[in-house]
Amino acid sequence: MGELENKQVIFKGYIDGVPKETDLEFKVTKIDLNVHTKGSGAILVKNLYLSCDPYMRGRMRDFHGSYIKPFVPGQVIEGFGVSKVIHSDHPNFKPGDFITGFTGWEQYSLIKNTDQLRKIQPDDDIPLSFYVGLLGMPGITAYAGFYEVCTPQKGEYVFVSAASGAVGQLVGQLAKLHGCYVVGSAGSKEKVEILKNKLGFDEAFNYKEESDLDATLKRYFPQGIDIYFDNVGGDMLDAALLNMRIHGRIAVCGMVSQQSLSTPIGIYNLLNLITRRIKMQGFLQSDYLHLYPRFLEHVASYYKQGKILYVEDMNEGLESAPAAFAGLFHGKNVGKQVICVARD
Amino acid sequence: MGELENKQVIFKGYIDGVPKETDLEFKVTKIDLNVHTKGSGAILVKNLYLSCDPYMRGRMRDFHGSYIKPFVPGQVIEGFGVSKVIHSDHPNFKPGDFITGFTGWEQYSLIKNTDQLRKIQPDDDIPLSFYVGLLGMPGITAYAGFYEVCTPQKGEYVFVSAASGAVGQLVGQLAKLHGCYVVGSAGSKEKVEILKNKLGFDEAFNYKEESDLDATLKRYFPQGIDIYFDNVGGDMLDAALLNMRIHGRIAVCGMVSQQSLSTPIGIYNLLNLITRRIKMQGFLQSDYLHLYPRFLEHVASYYKQGKILYVEDMNEGLESAPAAFAGLFHGKNVGKQVICVARD
Repeated sequence: MGELENKQVIFKGYIDGVPKETDLEFKVTKIDLNVHTKGSGAILVKNLYLSCDPYMRGRMRDFHGSYIKPFVPGQVIEGFGVSKVIHSDHPNFKPGDFITGFTGWEQYSLIKNTDQLRKIQPDDDIPLSFYVGLLGMPGITAYAGFYEVCTPQKGEYVFVSAASGAVGQLVGQLAKLHGCYVVGSAGSKEKVEILKNKLGFDEAFNYKEESDLDATLKRYFPQGIDIYFDNVGGDMLDAALLNMRIHGRIAVCGMVSQQSLSTPIGIYNLLNLITRRIKMQGFLQSDYLHLYPRFLEHVASYYKQGKILYVEDMNEGLESAPAAFAGLFHGKNVGKQVICVARD
Repeated sequence: MGELENKQVIFKGYIDGVPKETDLEFKVTKIDLNVHTKGSGAILVKNLYLSCDPYMRGRMRDFHGSYIKPFVPGQVIEGFGVSKVIHSDHPNFKPGDFITGFTGWEQYSLIKNTDQLRKIQPDDDIPLSFYVGLLGMPGITAYAGFYEVCTPQKGEYVFVSAASGAVGQLVGQLAKLHGCYVVGSAGSKEKVEILKNKLGFDEAFNYKEESDLDATLKRYFPQGIDIYFDNVGGDMLDAALLNMRIHGRIAVCGMVSQQSLSTPIGIYNLLNLITRRIKMQGFLQSDYLHLYPRFLEHVASYYKQGKILYVEDMNEGLESAPAAFAGLFHGKNVGKQVICVARD
């Protein structure tokens, strides 16, 4: 097979504030397709789809105490992807297999840590890119967060922020299938239309057009909120705390509004946790991987039956990755942000 | 029996800020000991012990949306008490019975809502006043909060704020009996001594002597906190959020530091809820009354075996009630604040 050109997206160095396109740079290297020695257990893959996720911001600071290590300056960005096996020194993988898991933001990757990979069973009815979205990390985040953290009951009032995003859109649809009343917030008219007309939310609003989020939530939830699936933190969380019902639950999933701030904004309404007996729980999907088989069966089946949809924002080419990633933090993506590096 | 003089503590009117002694006033009225008509189901009681509790601050504002109604200006203060039945029109109560539940801050009360009362089985080894403390609302708050909300494991690291108070002192002792490592915070040297030398806490500190609560908690919990039983909110909560271990639990029990502020201070470190997968839960003991029989048996037995102690701050005479109540919000009480109106 010899040596091939390998375009890479490199992490330039630790940052403050909101990620910019220029925090990443391109490099063209060569990769030896036969480089891995016998017994290494490594596999060589061609990357097809790469996932842009807000949590990656956390890896752009020089802090080693979190649940995931920071990126290494000068090295290729790492993230979830869907890849095709080109060459394998591992008995579980053979050329032509499709896999999903952590890979590099580059055309080809040598993956040594294969324990974290999942093999994809090809299915003509399910796009491969869904394995970094609906059927990947965002999907199981929505699934575990909604069923395990929010413990929903039929008929409950559910509010989802960043509702058209990778996680939010599935939360809202699962909540509807569960018999809940669901309102979503998003940051543009287009997204609000998608929530109401495509994804089946009962109501949706553009938070950028609202000057008093407390009043907004009171308008959409005159009877209060049982479940708040919080993808944003900040002011929206503070307003939700004023509108929770007794024994309400808040799943704290992401705080995209806060991730880039060196000093996050204050939350003032936590006294309501006591008076309304609210459970507020942070979680990561990595604690719920034992649910993956059930999740996959459940959600793939819903999708094939047309009971749920999944909106992707697909950018073409590795070259589009830095702008697409930076765009996440300005809400530019409509649906799950994916980079298509190659189609097969 | 005729008519008797009845001293009362009257709620003057709604307040802002920290309660003051002058927010309450005395009135001497008369009470007709035979006033209640046949068939009313009411009982007339002589009040023996009255409980001063921080939650009562919440009833001093004109807000009707909470779990408990505001006080009525011009009327007698209501709170938990221990009382002796003088006269009864209810088949479940007879003169001479001791009861505990909501009563008035006055010498004698006519109680119409008897459903909320519990009869006390007299026991020479247990002070009657304990039924508003160790074996009353603060006791079951500690019990339910620790066992049900915190789901403790042997060997875990437990932090309790306001640790010498009505609730905190029992939480700490239950945690020690459960095999946990326990550190408490309090607001004076005397209280810290009680925590360490009398109540068996592993460590304790005076938060008023600490300038950097994050650094303080790192000193006492170099390995982090599994359980934070939060009685205060505010800065201590924010510092604890920086020191929780993965899958930590925060029981949000009281926010005495915030109750009197019209605008509470901001909490900035909630992003840790996600990265450390923390459950933060507000609760009220009233949701756990089904546990009362088990609690009573469990805690009374520990007390009789000398395995737990209970520190009371007993003020003599109804006249002392306003100052004792106001003192709660300045940490003047050492242990559970009780007013002795009469000994029997």
